[in-house]
Amino acid sequence: MESSQRVEPPSGTRDFLAPELRRRERAFATVREVFERYGFGPLQTPAFERIEVLTGKYGDEGDKLIFKILRRGEHEASGVADLALRYDLTVPLARVAAAYGSRLPSPYKRYAIAPVWRADRPGKGRFREFVQCDLDVVGSTSALADAETVCAVADALDALGVGQFRFLLNSRRALAGLLESYRVPEHLGGGVLITLDKLDKLAGTEVAAELEQRGLDPDTAKSLVEDLTAEDSVARMRAALGASEQGRDGLAEIDEVLGLVTGRVGAERIAFTPRLVRGLDYYTGIIWEVVAPGMPGSIASGGRYDHLVESLGGPDLPACGGSLGIERILALTGEDQPVSDGLDVAITVIDEAGSDLIAIASALRDAGWRTGTYLGASRKLSKQLKWAADQGARYSLIYGADERAAGQVTLRDMATGEQTRAPVADAARHLGQREAR
Amino acid sequence: MESSQRVEPPSGTRDFLAPELRRRERAFATVREVFERYGFGPLQTPAFERIEVLTGKYGDEGDKLIFKILRRGEHEASGVADLALRYDLTVPLARVAAAYGSRLPSPYKRYAIAPVWRADRPGKGRFREFVQCDLDVVGSTSALADAETVCAVADALDALGVGQFRFLLNSRRALAGLLESYRVPEHLGGGVLITLDKLDKLAGTEVAAELEQRGLDPDTAKSLVEDLTAEDSVARMRAALGASEQGRDGLAEIDEVLGLVTGRVGAERIAFTPRLVRGLDYYTGIIWEVVAPGMPGSIASGGRYDHLVESLGGPDLPACGGSLGIERILALTGEDQPVSDGLDVAITVIDEAGSDLIAIASALRDAGWRTGTYLGASRKLSKQLKWAADQGARYSLIYGADERAAGQVTLRDMATGEQTRAPVADAARHLGQREAR
Repeated sequence: MESSQRVEPPSGTRDFLAPELRRRERAFATVREVFERYGFGPLQTPAFERIEVLTGKYGDEGDKLIFKILRRGEHEASGVADLALRYDLTVPLARVAAAYGSRLPSPYKRYAIAPVWRADRPGKGRFREFVQCDLDVVGSTSALADAETVCAVADALDALGVGQFRFLLNSRRALAGLLESYRVPEHLGGGVLITLDKLDKLAGTEVAAELEQRGLDPDTAKSLVEDLTAEDSVARMRAALGASEQGRDGLAEIDEVLGLVTGRVGAERIAFTPRLVRGLDYYTGIIWEVVAPGMPGSIASGGRYDHLVESLGGPDLPACGGSLGIERILALTGEDQPVSDGLDVAITVIDEAGSDLIAIASALRDAGWRTGTYLGASRKLSKQLKWAADQGARYSLIYGADERAAGQVTLRDMATGEQTRAPVADAARHLGQREAR
Repeated sequence: MESSQRVEPPSGTRDFLAPELRRRERAFATVREVFERYGFGPLQTPAFERIEVLTGKYGDEGDKLIFKILRRGEHEASGVADLALRYDLTVPLARVAAAYGSRLPSPYKRYAIAPVWRADRPGKGRFREFVQCDLDVVGSTSALADAETVCAVADALDALGVGQFRFLLNSRRALAGLLESYRVPEHLGGGVLITLDKLDKLAGTEVAAELEQRGLDPDTAKSLVEDLTAEDSVARMRAALGASEQGRDGLAEIDEVLGLVTGRVGAERIAFTPRLVRGLDYYTGIIWEVVAPGMPGSIASGGRYDHLVESLGGPDLPACGGSLGIERILALTGEDQPVSDGLDVAITVIDEAGSDLIAIASALRDAGWRTGTYLGASRKLSKQLKWAADQGARYSLIYGADERAAGQVTLRDMATGEQTRAPVADAARHLGQREAR
């Protein structure tokens, strides 16, 4: 009747039927609960923004991936877009910070768990509609703010059952100090860091070669790579950074955050990681990433970005925050946690359904039992019990002519096939007692 | 720094800060819980669909209100749209029914509470992004299915605290029988019903005049209006409908559903309402609307639409369902139910924050207390207590030099100003005991 082409969801998007949706919602609720305990509050912004709010914020490559919405009515024919789907949750936060200003709590601690849209080429684990999960503190320079975002993310990962994970911690200031200590010419700094970021993917010699290509002298390239990949890289970095003011500042903020969080996160799960480089365009202080065995890349990341809100159109407020890669985490923890979608009670309808049937169902529902009634055309009990089994029902309730005459219902345990009778008015209590046994 | 123009959300959309968002989420959760108890399961589809899935489904006027998404990359310049934002939750349901077919439970009972987008002119209570709240049973012809959607909606309205509301019930078949009984020429039928639908807004004489304009003879127009607006309109209709087979069928289905639901919904809250006319384009059986004092129009509506899923691109399955006007209901019930956004415990940070502070906060959070730490720059207790009050905190926790030396914390009840001391390790238990008193 329809070609399969036409009934699938658009490329890179997904339909979520109940079992998978429940699993996702449960994970989101878990994260939300942790963030709430840390005193973060939710923010929800529209799915789309005025196009000028988004364009120019994500670089040329990012701009190409923005879904743009055509003007409407007489303007539709112009082919011009005036709105665009949200690309991340940070730009809308910056807009809200600008719009509400001092009417927001100070500092403003918000989380958002919401879909974003990117016209990326769809692929395994890469979607055009996917959920981001962000928390940010806007308006505080305190290291406690950095520490609490790290702790909240660690708690969330624990609550999600990720189990083994590790925070890699560094500082943008330490990286600046690193460049200073190794006398990297200022104009090469950005490129050098971009190349050093590849140390977890490429061999040291390859990275050194790329550094030379960028114009770094071979000796500096070699010693940078050597020092960052040595087993005692942390000691080497601490020594090197001591020579630069920025390096000392960076080390100090790393040590301050480590001192605050280690008790909570666990010393084996967080460490200063000199070769961690990320998001150089806007990070200004602490940066971190979380890795987990079996997951390529990171499952969470964040840091301090004191001028990002301003650069995105908000006021110039200090800020720090983080983001959970919740889609990745769901893929990581998902397989083994199917969520039951079954009914508690499936009511068979042997004779004509009457208001007494609704009364029976209502009493069960009022008592909190998830209750379905048979809505098919068959009047055969065997067929209806098959339906009950298909629904994953724990109990079925049979109310035929016999039961009606006796003012009773028959309750069937779908797992064991055991059947008991109970007075009509007592079905909910009877099931409650069975459960309590 | 920014003109106010640029920081507002797009026209017709809203930013939801924590207090309002919590109120909305709480209402959605209430509805979800009721629908779940009835055995409905959630469905989530993408925010956008391929454009051909949506166009032609909502009439010419509807089509103009669809937000269309521009093709991307090299195709962007074409000005052509290939995707469009979801306009309602029913078309995506039909697409899912087509895509999954027999892999869906039968019948398929689903609910969806999700935003839809319409490029309507924004106005008071009319938004371009708003939440719809639908439940549907696909694949059952049973009157029990109609009855259960009605009961579920009634339960949801009760749970939302709507209080006074009334179901108006009619049947598409009864309306067809009405036209037959009054010998309305077949080609006038649709128009006559559209005009009769105005009986709750226009005077009877105005409606009769419009019926004549449509070509109905004056006597028929007059008696139709008279009979439908008379105090004993139900009795008149029952008499009139008895003369037509469709009319008798319609009456029978009305009486069957009334018989099933009245015990649950309450006889004073549901009645056969002969002049109820709605959604003529796709309803095939029972139709209903819910009205509430103080709300113009309806706050919920639904009915049976046995061929809608097919006409929207799905398989030809019988279906019935309903929709809660949740945005209207939130406006109706909202004002008096602010949701607290406050912290349970606000921790002041008088001295340098240390890991012991994180440990204190962690213990409170682990015990389920929503706990924030002071992240500002001031070291003055008075200023920090003002922050705690601004956060709506119930308690503040003071941990200064004195407390540290004694291994204690000071707990301040923010409402009374009363202060007590407790051992550091005991803060959560101490607060729990206070609450239990």
